[in-house]
Amino acid sequence: MPEPARKGERIFRGIPVSAGVCRGKVLVLGKSNALVPKRQIPESQVTEEVARLEQALSQTRHQILDVQRKVCDGMGAQEGGIFDAHLLVLEDRTLLDEVLRNIQDKRFNAEFAFHAVAEKYATTLAAIEDDYLRERATDMRDVTSRILNNLTGRQEEVDLRKLKEPCVIISYDLSPSTTAQLDKKTVLGFATDVGGKTSHTAIMARSLRIPAVVGLKGASNELETGDYILLDGYNGVIIINPTDQTLFEYGQIIRKQVTLQEKLRDIQLKPAVTLDGHRVTLSANVEQPRDAEEVLANGGEGVGLFRTEYLFINRDTMPTEEEQYEAYKQVASALKPQPVVIRTLDLGGDKFHSQLQAPTELNPFLGWRAIRYCLQEPTVFRHQLRAVLRASVEGNVKMMYPMISGVDELNQANALLEQYKAELRAEKIPFDEGMEIGAMIEVPSAALVADALARRLKFFSLGTNDLIQYTLAVDRMNEKVAHLYEPTHPAILRLIKNTVEAGRRNNIWVGVCGEMAGDPVLIPLLLGLGVDELSAAPALVPPVKFLIRRLKMSEARELAEFALSCESASDILVRCQALARDIAPSLFENKA
Amino acid sequence: MPEPARKGERIFRGIPVSAGVCRGKVLVLGKSNALVPKRQIPESQVTEEVARLEQALSQTRHQILDVQRKVCDGMGAQEGGIFDAHLLVLEDRTLLDEVLRNIQDKRFNAEFAFHAVAEKYATTLAAIEDDYLRERATDMRDVTSRILNNLTGRQEEVDLRKLKEPCVIISYDLSPSTTAQLDKKTVLGFATDVGGKTSHTAIMARSLRIPAVVGLKGASNELETGDYILLDGYNGVIIINPTDQTLFEYGQIIRKQVTLQEKLRDIQLKPAVTLDGHRVTLSANVEQPRDAEEVLANGGEGVGLFRTEYLFINRDTMPTEEEQYEAYKQVASALKPQPVVIRTLDLGGDKFHSQLQAPTELNPFLGWRAIRYCLQEPTVFRHQLRAVLRASVEGNVKMMYPMISGVDELNQANALLEQYKAELRAEKIPFDEGMEIGAMIEVPSAALVADALARRLKFFSLGTNDLIQYTLAVDRMNEKVAHLYEPTHPAILRLIKNTVEAGRRNNIWVGVCGEMAGDPVLIPLLLGLGVDELSAAPALVPPVKFLIRRLKMSEARELAEFALSCESASDILVRCQALARDIAPSLFENKA
Repeated sequence: MPEPARKGERIFRGIPVSAGVCRGKVLVLGKSNALVPKRQIPESQVTEEVARLEQALSQTRHQILDVQRKVCDGMGAQEGGIFDAHLLVLEDRTLLDEVLRNIQDKRFNAEFAFHAVAEKYATTLAAIEDDYLRERATDMRDVTSRILNNLTGRQEEVDLRKLKEPCVIISYDLSPSTTAQLDKKTVLGFATDVGGKTSHTAIMARSLRIPAVVGLKGASNELETGDYILLDGYNGVIIINPTDQTLFEYGQIIRKQVTLQEKLRDIQLKPAVTLDGHRVTLSANVEQPRDAEEVLANGGEGVGLFRTEYLFINRDTMPTEEEQYEAYKQVASALKPQPVVIRTLDLGGDKFHSQLQAPTELNPFLGWRAIRYCLQEPTVFRHQLRAVLRASVEGNVKMMYPMISGVDELNQANALLEQYKAELRAEKIPFDEGMEIGAMIEVPSAALVADALARRLKFFSLGTNDLIQYTLAVDRMNEKVAHLYEPTHPAILRLIKNTVEAGRRNNIWVGVCGEMAGDPVLIPLLLGLGVDELSAAPALVPPVKFLIRRLKMSEARELAEFALSCESASDILVRCQALARDIAPSLFENKA
Repeated sequence: MPEPARKGERIFRGIPVSAGVCRGKVLVLGKSNALVPKRQIPESQVTEEVARLEQALSQTRHQILDVQRKVCDGMGAQEGGIFDAHLLVLEDRTLLDEVLRNIQDKRFNAEFAFHAVAEKYATTLAAIEDDYLRERATDMRDVTSRILNNLTGRQEEVDLRKLKEPCVIISYDLSPSTTAQLDKKTVLGFATDVGGKTSHTAIMARSLRIPAVVGLKGASNELETGDYILLDGYNGVIIINPTDQTLFEYGQIIRKQVTLQEKLRDIQLKPAVTLDGHRVTLSANVEQPRDAEEVLANGGEGVGLFRTEYLFINRDTMPTEEEQYEAYKQVASALKPQPVVIRTLDLGGDKFHSQLQAPTELNPFLGWRAIRYCLQEPTVFRHQLRAVLRASVEGNVKMMYPMISGVDELNQANALLEQYKAELRAEKIPFDEGMEIGAMIEVPSAALVADALARRLKFFSLGTNDLIQYTLAVDRMNEKVAHLYEPTHPAILRLIKNTVEAGRRNNIWVGVCGEMAGDPVLIPLLLGLGVDELSAAPALVPPVKFLIRRLKMSEARELAEFALSCESASDILVRCQALARDIAPSLFENKA
């Protein structure tokens, strides 16, 4: 990227959160609540004003539920979950009581009464040095904005889906409601003053593959609607009035990226095989049935992780056995004969039916989640296991348990499975008697006793995200310690190696389904450590395959050997980066 | 214990939380807030009533601070921290606003206004299936009780310190305020309807060594002041009107315990050496300087873990270098020439300056704590390290870092230490140039890379509590998963073994300072795994030494060998129990 700015240019630097480069006219959003009408109302009107407020609250609730459903459908349950926090604002008794007092005692109009209280709370939350609470402030303001629009009968100022001309959105922050309207067709990219790599806007941008930069500090104040900018989502830079030289350089980047996309398309149907003939199984992670199509489109060989949480969250009742059966069967049937690994329910930790059931646990990641929950709620487990067993008739279904910590838990889960199998036999309902059962290896103790587990299973899938978090005692969502989350930490590599060796000794395959499996830089290391299968988000399958096809297993083994003898996570990472850039430079050509 | 009850007896079974047997007259406490006066006040009196409330709040605040100081002095900072939750009740704006509205709008007297709101909250909290929230309900009621007493000018009904005759306290629950008055001289034991092994009453009882049983369900309703009972804190039983036969059997237990105490006293000055001549270093953990005396009284050979958090919690300012120096020097000097291992600050997780600074972190155990905090707050770290270095002039000081996760963190900490040493040299302030530096091994990754750490340190101290929590991904304070917290899990034993072997290869000693080191049942296993030093709470040093002196290292090694080849945590525990009971039966003779 040009350094310093060329004449006439202005550059803002932030945090790159979604890859890609775009350029175009700016649309600056925000600050529409600045003027809220303030009126004293007569006592006779109090009842009516309260009724107006209630009507607006109810309308807002329906709107949020509507957006939430659309987001869940379009982007997955995790993104949809963001709106639970909005619904909570509408149910905050303390806030609502204070608003009511503003109307009843102080005789203010509903708009002002609500805005005054909500803004007081939001300001307080926003002032605290804590990302979580700052996001709650954004939630509060987003909901307030909706309620005010509903009270005044105003439309939302900008409907991003109706923009005439594609543009680059600039804003202090993007509310989830606005983010939900983002559409690749009209929004070229976006940039915000606040946010980090894990904020919801960043997650949404990556899901939608819209280039984005956040954490630009004061940029939204400096820019005007109509400005012409270039946004570089690889390097976290926006450039106002880019010079011809800058545009030329970015043109090169884009050309290289286009060439890369073509190369990736060329290998879509080719196998993931190294230059020296080592075949790797490359599958994809899916969140829900409709993702099956994307798996195939990206050249994934089946599903290495089918998350089933989407069936359970954002609803009041548990899904029936039948509903689950249909979903599992749909995916298995769509991908036949390629394998589909269904993971049993992993609720808890940071995933809940709804935010209302969110944890009172002090350390939810160390709490009642996944298999722990299922073993204590056998009705839930029974419905799911019966549904998976029934779907296994398709012939390509495998199943795995999350969060297994040792042999005792595994034995309990398998005993229940046998019981449900016996039920089905008695009911003469067919299932695949040979269905392979595996376990996620994501609790450190499981990696340490992998030998004992391997004797009882047909495969392992390393859940590296959690494995790293627990082994290093780091919640990576916590900004203060996120720097300690290091996938190349020697301790992690030893656990992976121990798991792989246990698998090998017991003739079972070992895959990786955590984010490491989707990072080309780390692929040679994983393969060198002896991993048999990789399962990544569908969009990440092509670059991973591209890299594998340019790798020699001898290089991968050498890298792994070096890494296992090295004491420093960062030294290992540097070697990984050097190898990946050396064999597949085009994956990394995104700097001007 | 008699099963079933003998004729004339009535038995209640609960959870044993503090060892010992006692018998005597019952004093039933509680239910004093049942009748709260309710009055309508004239508008003219509103201001006065609000003033009365404020006066009572302020008075209550002072009383709580006073009790807190006494408890901190008498029992340690952890116990004193319980009262922070009480102070928070007094600052709960939502609650207080509602109380004020009860006075100002509804014209109720202050007593009724406060009680109505607080009781509503407490009832809601108590109804939730969550121990943490239930304790908050108890806090709320305890504070309410104080405020009502202050409003009415009533004295607390019972001052336990002024009881004429020693008795056994029975209550629905014991408030921290009441618990703080417990005194071994007048309170023989106590029993409550609610609570668990980790509730504050249980912790207090163990600190005070008063026999206690909790979780007795409805017992407090069934008993009357003046009843005669026997309370068995070993087995969690209370027996009303015990028969002569029962008393005889419990007499036997007590006689055995008295004999055991005599035996333990006999070995106070003897070394911790096995029957086959293996010498073990047996030290004690201390929380603050005054504990030094207890270390010696219990025959501890120095301090294996000197927690320094007490200097930092329950205060608004950081302790100065000078204040810390005095404290460290005091302990070092009192125990000279025996070693004192000072652990650098371990704030965060579940320990904070005050509850007001308690975490907004979603998973504090995986968050910003201990060495992570110190490396990012170098001023705090500098004062502490300079104070420790200055105290090292005593010649017997060692220092260790908590929560080290790998080589990079250790290098950072050691670099800062060298910098502070250079400062002191420049200032011509003396310190022990040879002071040994060690690290807690409590993060799984540290145990996995123990080899690399051992090359840079003089000793390891295994913090088994955290090591188990992280390795098994279990917060043991969380009742729903506490059953998964298993010290004998094969994964834990492998990490201990790896740490010990790394220490041995690099000629550094390896100790254990977690709770495992104070549990006689687990001592043979730890020694068999090759641990050199054990550090336990002072009161646990004598039974641990007793067991060691009856153990052969050959038995310990055989046990460890079995354990390392075993797949099941519970099978390992059973073997540990069998060996301990076999060689030291008198430690376990507490069942009638």
